[in-house]
Amino acid sequence: MPTASQRIPAVVRPLVSERARKTLDLVEKFVNEECLPADPVYHAQLGEGPARWTYPPIMDDLKKKARDLGLWNMFLAKGHYKEGAGFTNLEYGLMVEHFGRCRTASEATNNSAPDTGNMEVLAKYGSEAQKKRWLEPLLKGEIRSCYVMTEPGTASSDATNVALSIRRDGDSYVLNGQKWWISGAGDPRCKVYMVLGKTDPNAEKYRQQSIIIVPTDTPGITIKRMLSVYGYDDAPHGHAHLVFKDVRVPAENIVLGEGRGFEVMQGRMGPGRIHHAMRSIGAAEEALNWLLTRANAEHKKPFGKLLSQQGVILQWIAKSRIEIDAARLIVLNAAAAIDAGNAKQALMEIAQAKILVPNMALDVIDRAVQTYGAEGVCQDTPLAYMWAQVRTVRIADGPDEAHLEQLGRRENKRAAEAAFLLQRQVEITDALFRKYGTKESGPCSKL
Amino acid sequence: MPTASQRIPAVVRPLVSERARKTLDLVEKFVNEECLPADPVYHAQLGEGPARWTYPPIMDDLKKKARDLGLWNMFLAKGHYKEGAGFTNLEYGLMVEHFGRCRTASEATNNSAPDTGNMEVLAKYGSEAQKKRWLEPLLKGEIRSCYVMTEPGTASSDATNVALSIRRDGDSYVLNGQKWWISGAGDPRCKVYMVLGKTDPNAEKYRQQSIIIVPTDTPGITIKRMLSVYGYDDAPHGHAHLVFKDVRVPAENIVLGEGRGFEVMQGRMGPGRIHHAMRSIGAAEEALNWLLTRANAEHKKPFGKLLSQQGVILQWIAKSRIEIDAARLIVLNAAAAIDAGNAKQALMEIAQAKILVPNMALDVIDRAVQTYGAEGVCQDTPLAYMWAQVRTVRIADGPDEAHLEQLGRRENKRAAEAAFLLQRQVEITDALFRKYGTKESGPCSKL
Amino acid sequence: MPTASQRIPAVVRPLVSERARKTLDLVEKFVNEECLPADPVYHAQLGEGPARWTYPPIMDDLKKKARDLGLWNMFLAKGHYKEGAGFTNLEYGLMVEHFGRCRTASEATNNSAPDTGNMEVLAKYGSEAQKKRWLEPLLKGEIRSCYVMTEPGTASSDATNVALSIRRDGDSYVLNGQKWWISGAGDPRCKVYMVLGKTDPNAEKYRQQSIIIVPTDTPGITIKRMLSVYGYDDAPHGHAHLVFKDVRVPAENIVLGEGRGFEVMQGRMGPGRIHHAMRSIGAAEEALNWLLTRANAEHKKPFGKLLSQQGVILQWIAKSRIEIDAARLIVLNAAAAIDAGNAKQALMEIAQAKILVPNMALDVIDRAVQTYGAEGVCQDTPLAYMWAQVRTVRIADGPDEAHLEQLGRRENKRAAEAAFLLQRQVEITDALFRKYGTKESGPCSKL
Amino acid sequence: MPTASQRIPAVVRPLVSERARKTLDLVEKFVNEECLPADPVYHAQLGEGPARWTYPPIMDDLKKKARDLGLWNMFLAKGHYKEGAGFTNLEYGLMVEHFGRCRTASEATNNSAPDTGNMEVLAKYGSEAQKKRWLEPLLKGEIRSCYVMTEPGTASSDATNVALSIRRDGDSYVLNGQKWWISGAGDPRCKVYMVLGKTDPNAEKYRQQSIIIVPTDTPGITIKRMLSVYGYDDAPHGHAHLVFKDVRVPAENIVLGEGRGFEVMQGRMGPGRIHHAMRSIGAAEEALNWLLTRANAEHKKPFGKLLSQQGVILQWIAKSRIEIDAARLIVLNAAAAIDAGNAKQALMEIAQAKILVPNMALDVIDRAVQTYGAEGVCQDTPLAYMWAQVRTVRIADGPDEAHLEQLGRRENKRAAEAAFLLQRQVEITDALFRKYGTKESGPCSKL
Repeated sequence: MPTASQRIPAVVRPLVSERARKTLDLVEKFVNEECLPADPVYHAQLGEGPARWTYPPIMDDLKKKARDLGLWNMFLAKGHYKEGAGFTNLEYGLMVEHFGRCRTASEATNNSAPDTGNMEVLAKYGSEAQKKRWLEPLLKGEIRSCYVMTEPGTASSDATNVALSIRRDGDSYVLNGQKWWISGAGDPRCKVYMVLGKTDPNAEKYRQQSIIIVPTDTPGITIKRMLSVYGYDDAPHGHAHLVFKDVRVPAENIVLGEGRGFEVMQGRMGPGRIHHAMRSIGAAEEALNWLLTRANAEHKKPFGKLLSQQGVILQWIAKSRIEIDAARLIVLNAAAAIDAGNAKQALMEIAQAKILVPNMALDVIDRAVQTYGAEGVCQDTPLAYMWAQVRTVRIADGPDEAHLEQLGRRENKRAAEAAFLLQRQVEITDALFRKYGTKESGPCSKL
Repeated sequence: MPTASQRIPAVVRPLVSERARKTLDLVEKFVNEECLPADPVYHAQLGEGPARWTYPPIMDDLKKKARDLGLWNMFLAKGHYKEGAGFTNLEYGLMVEHFGRCRTASEATNNSAPDTGNMEVLAKYGSEAQKKRWLEPLLKGEIRSCYVMTEPGTASSDATNVALSIRRDGDSYVLNGQKWWISGAGDPRCKVYMVLGKTDPNAEKYRQQSIIIVPTDTPGITIKRMLSVYGYDDAPHGHAHLVFKDVRVPAENIVLGEGRGFEVMQGRMGPGRIHHAMRSIGAAEEALNWLLTRANAEHKKPFGKLLSQQGVILQWIAKSRIEIDAARLIVLNAAAAIDAGNAKQALMEIAQAKILVPNMALDVIDRAVQTYGAEGVCQDTPLAYMWAQVRTVRIADGPDEAHLEQLGRRENKRAAEAAFLLQRQVEITDALFRKYGTKESGPCSKL
Repeated sequence: MPTASQRIPAVVRPLVSERARKTLDLVEKFVNEECLPADPVYHAQLGEGPARWTYPPIMDDLKKKARDLGLWNMFLAKGHYKEGAGFTNLEYGLMVEHFGRCRTASEATNNSAPDTGNMEVLAKYGSEAQKKRWLEPLLKGEIRSCYVMTEPGTASSDATNVALSIRRDGDSYVLNGQKWWISGAGDPRCKVYMVLGKTDPNAEKYRQQSIIIVPTDTPGITIKRMLSVYGYDDAPHGHAHLVFKDVRVPAENIVLGEGRGFEVMQGRMGPGRIHHAMRSIGAAEEALNWLLTRANAEHKKPFGKLLSQQGVILQWIAKSRIEIDAARLIVLNAAAAIDAGNAKQALMEIAQAKILVPNMALDVIDRAVQTYGAEGVCQDTPLAYMWAQVRTVRIADGPDEAHLEQLGRRENKRAAEAAFLLQRQVEITDALFRKYGTKESGPCSKL
Repeated sequence: MPTASQRIPAVVRPLVSERARKTLDLVEKFVNEECLPADPVYHAQLGEGPARWTYPPIMDDLKKKARDLGLWNMFLAKGHYKEGAGFTNLEYGLMVEHFGRCRTASEATNNSAPDTGNMEVLAKYGSEAQKKRWLEPLLKGEIRSCYVMTEPGTASSDATNVALSIRRDGDSYVLNGQKWWISGAGDPRCKVYMVLGKTDPNAEKYRQQSIIIVPTDTPGITIKRMLSVYGYDDAPHGHAHLVFKDVRVPAENIVLGEGRGFEVMQGRMGPGRIHHAMRSIGAAEEALNWLLTRANAEHKKPFGKLLSQQGVILQWIAKSRIEIDAARLIVLNAAAAIDAGNAKQALMEIAQAKILVPNMALDVIDRAVQTYGAEGVCQDTPLAYMWAQVRTVRIADGPDEAHLEQLGRRENKRAAEAAFLLQRQVEITDALFRKYGTKESGPCSKL
């Protein structure tokens, strides 16, 4: 059975250091032997009803094991904060794929969203005091955090619409408004919100919003309700609908400065999208494993034939293999582009990954569901849950359609070049016709 | 306007030598400034009717220019024959993409199918005499050749069905039977056929066939008719239906030895498929250039709007960009896999390219056709012709479905591994449940 | 705003009686003004936790209203039992589409699965005693029932695999085994199971199984757990995993006779599939209504434009319209085929509906989800829940793939006819060539 | 083997008269036994080169047979001109499907485009003199005609762009400009053009264009070249690029009056689109016949198995069956809608057919091509040619995308209704919550 490092695509191999290969294999082993088996226990420890918004004991054991193995904070790039973990985005991408195969691994290794993005923001833009108070405990995995952006009632895929009011009042800011889809707010260890809101409605369009740090126990914040994702509550993480009523925080909690919300947000985006995408790749791989297992189950042969002996199932397997591998290369290419320059120069590559991957993964997972039949839609496999998770990736950080349009506009800028090339060719062709004395195509001539 | 070498995907860049980058940019320039403009003249020089099966004078001028630029036989890998051209499969793949954007470039640089495959076979398996007589003039571009495999009336996607009789008779072999889809047979400079036929119907299944060299002017060979590809005759190359009646050639014309046809054929396959695939990538890129040009044509605005201002067209552009880039990475990864080992170890990667690329390219080209409307289906753009060409790639060397089934079977071999992993996880999970004293999920518990 | 009867497709109109049109409009009004508004209240009355497996009070009020309007048991065809409701399958199909738009309507009008199928079975095959004890209270809506077929651990899409043991013992039958996906078992008013099991493992393949009536309070039956569907528990209906341990029922509870399970099952299938399909059509229509509403919401304009002003959204709307209308015609044609003959003669038409409709509806609903973004995946619209419901239709009663293969085999029987026609044409063509003295196509002649 | 009338879909049957059924069966027999066998002879009689623009002798024999059978001008609706043929659009649709299965049948029965549309226009809007001079010989099949609308260099999918100048000069009109895609202009019997051009550039937008009758032998008209369709020249019909230079015709040749071009054009559109669509349905059915024949060819078994024993092929067959049948119902529903009212009231139904059918037919035909492999792309089956024909239907009379957008806009008008319904439901729901004293959903309550 080849290990993860042995399965790195040929074209990518030269970019992966020996140290990263070793860590990658360790990650795979940790996920296979510790995290995947822990997933059902984690769920069972949550139980039913209100008790679900708690912290399952098994997680602490997993965290301890991960730390002991040195599998901790691998997301943190060199130079981002202190020594960091020292992996490139591409190397980390290969690891995060395995986290995406299960529920517990990201958190067990302290590589889970939205903490990773928030830690990057704090490391990059935070004041020393902010780092000490929030970044340090986050890096140690003692607390968790939320990224508080989306609002009900506004089309917040366009972030200039974000309207929660952040009003300066003496040494404080006062927040008023509603937010929803605040992922992670259900976790009792969640201690801090990074809130995007409007500090100046009269400023220039991209200078109206700011990001501010809000401790979760600040008076005036209520969790109105938790939102479900296709019937799942995602406890204890969860997705909250929050109400902010006269929530007062010290002025120094602002990140980077008033009106610089877009700047901070942009810095947060690139690598995070790669991570999400690689998680979905992992989910697709795991789904394919389940599919293969069902398709070869000796005790379940409808009409006396293994499912894997049916041409249609073999096509599903083959197509899944091709589609996963193509999508992985797209993500790794985006990671390599970030590594070679920065997230901004790699915008096109990142957008490609953002669009391609979840659609691919949904197809693969759905094939696995269909192979299992009724078993595939219920709690007896992780497939239905995975599907629901990945489905949201087509929406989170803006719907596919917005990204497609943006990517289309960007590519369309090449039109002048393309037209210029075609036009020049026509001119050279005309000269050639004259040179050779050839007559242009007669009636219905062939190309 | 970034050059070809500047547009190499980030993840691939480290694998491309400085020399290959320079050649790549030279190829792009040659294609843009010489070959693409020459295409319409080439077609016009063919004219109408029987005159079409001739050799357009412009080709010799292109060949001379290519030689002068050092763009010649780039397909020939180091060690294959004498010094070769010294490029890796990946490096050559990047070049061949540009050949795929036009009609004349492959031939102008002596990198055109089926000659490249035949030259590889002769270089690898030919006797010294065979090399001298056929390989040398092929390498110089003085003559052309055919690969003669497919037969009417048999399902020759399964090559064990190939039935043309090659009977030993003293110092000769005598060939009897029919062949069709013999591409290149229409060209007056085609001087040699590499024929696959059956030398021993009683041998073991994969030892019945042999490959034999047959000069095209051997008595007993007739071109029964030429076959069209969606209305195109592909003159002067063409696709012939050949009849062999008591065609006698010296025994030494057999390649490698009797019964070794499969062995020879297999050696021919891997890199060739990569080349075909990269050509289709080039066709798709060229189609996207045409699409962009039409979508921004100021003088053609239905309902007063540029096509590129319409969301649907922008989506086509974006999707085309993503799909081309993903497919290219799949092909280059297969090339890297061949470069890292050999074609046999890279079978899965090659199959992925073989399947994914033409389907992608057909979609992109069809979008371009649709953008042009009626103009797109006729001789005024290369789009309809490109589409017909690429359509055959889904059939040539076996239909998609055969490759998908084979790839599915190969991937399905992982099923035991996957089942083993899942089973082991279940066991560890059970132990964890006992350890924590957690009860398994109650009524309808959440995952 | 045209009413439901005014929107009947032109080609269908002549088949719908005046009385059915009036009832159809009444159904639409009842669904719009009573049932759809009641849905959220119904859900809220279920609440959280174990309390969910109860009977929401609002349902009784709805039932009373439905009875008062004469909207009761419309599924029951004339002649099936007493006077029946007197509607054709096509007419009832038009009504059931509206039930599919909401949660409460089917039950409120006593037209809900699996009761309808069970009532048809009892009406057609039940003894007088069985009818009196079970059919009468079902028709009055006083009790509910389950159809108990699927088993864990067997590929029960092939019903010959059904293995639960039904052993004769004196005047009784004794049942042992497990069943799952027993829909409706969570409802406290569910009083009777129709169980398919094996009475004779040695009988001829299609005579081994029988159907037997089992009161739900028979000792030895336990609900092991409830199964979720993409996180939804479907309370109070629910999907149970049942264990039968030495469950003893009187011998007269067998339906139609030992070994006649397949016969009974077949009679149950045809019209039921049409109903399921029409419900999915209704779900798709309702999803399109939601999509249209969101796409024109003045207060939610990303980037300053109504979603409905974007070309891509307009395409979604148009495609949804076409796909829904095509699918509806396929279902209504199947209904017309049953009405014109019987379900057996209409097998192909029914299979077409079974396959086409859920795939179409999933696409339409998913577009609506995507249009709403995050709002679409949570509890604030019925879309995510609808999607999960319809997803199971691709699996229930056998997966798409089994039906496609069967339909393929059936259509493939026409091959001999088709080959005969083509062969005869070739012969006539040959004669014509001789008659006209025309020579067959020359080199690469056009078609 | 059931006849065409026995295969009428169940839901359509009540709408087809006994007389139409008999004619339908006669049409099927005529197509099967006369036209399909005549197709290859027709092609062979055209030959190669310039000779192709001629009239193959076999056509006159077919015409005679058709007349003798009473199969003549069936397109002509009762009341359109004299007695007409007396069939409804739906009845004629069923017949025209069979014409679409072959090349010669439409013309043999005098039901071929663009003559049918031109005859309808002349019958409806022509003066008595125009009818006598042009309609009568067209009805007798003595001459043929063209519809001259599309222009090179303008986006003529938007007909308001049509720019060819028609200038009044005394008793004459003088035409100047270029037209292309003038189908039928290659036929030596083509005697009359119906030309759309601009009579008044200053008039209101939809009153600038007029239609005028132009005899093909009027001085000043030249055929610049013929256009190919995926390599096919469609001889002798053909698609011409015409140049009009000072072409002078009598003023009375204007149809209906100056500035009424749009009015005339609109009357031409509805039923014609149904006919085109039904032809494509016929092409798809014929392709499926070919597919079935190949999939069961005993002498062509790759890897020892009939293609029809492979699951993937069976799925293709099943999907083709479903998709053809769904598309046919959509077309027949549109025909029924025209029959029940008029083409204007049936615009949505017609647009659905226009969009759905060619896309479906292309899929089915492409599957057939793929089943045949190389044989499928050449002249040995009608498949490649059929595909190219149907491909143009996605473009002719406006591209799919324009029709989708228009259909989307039309459906989007329902948005206010949908929003009103949803809003009213919310209000009733609120009242119900108050009535029952139920609390709204708690934290993450289930739907």
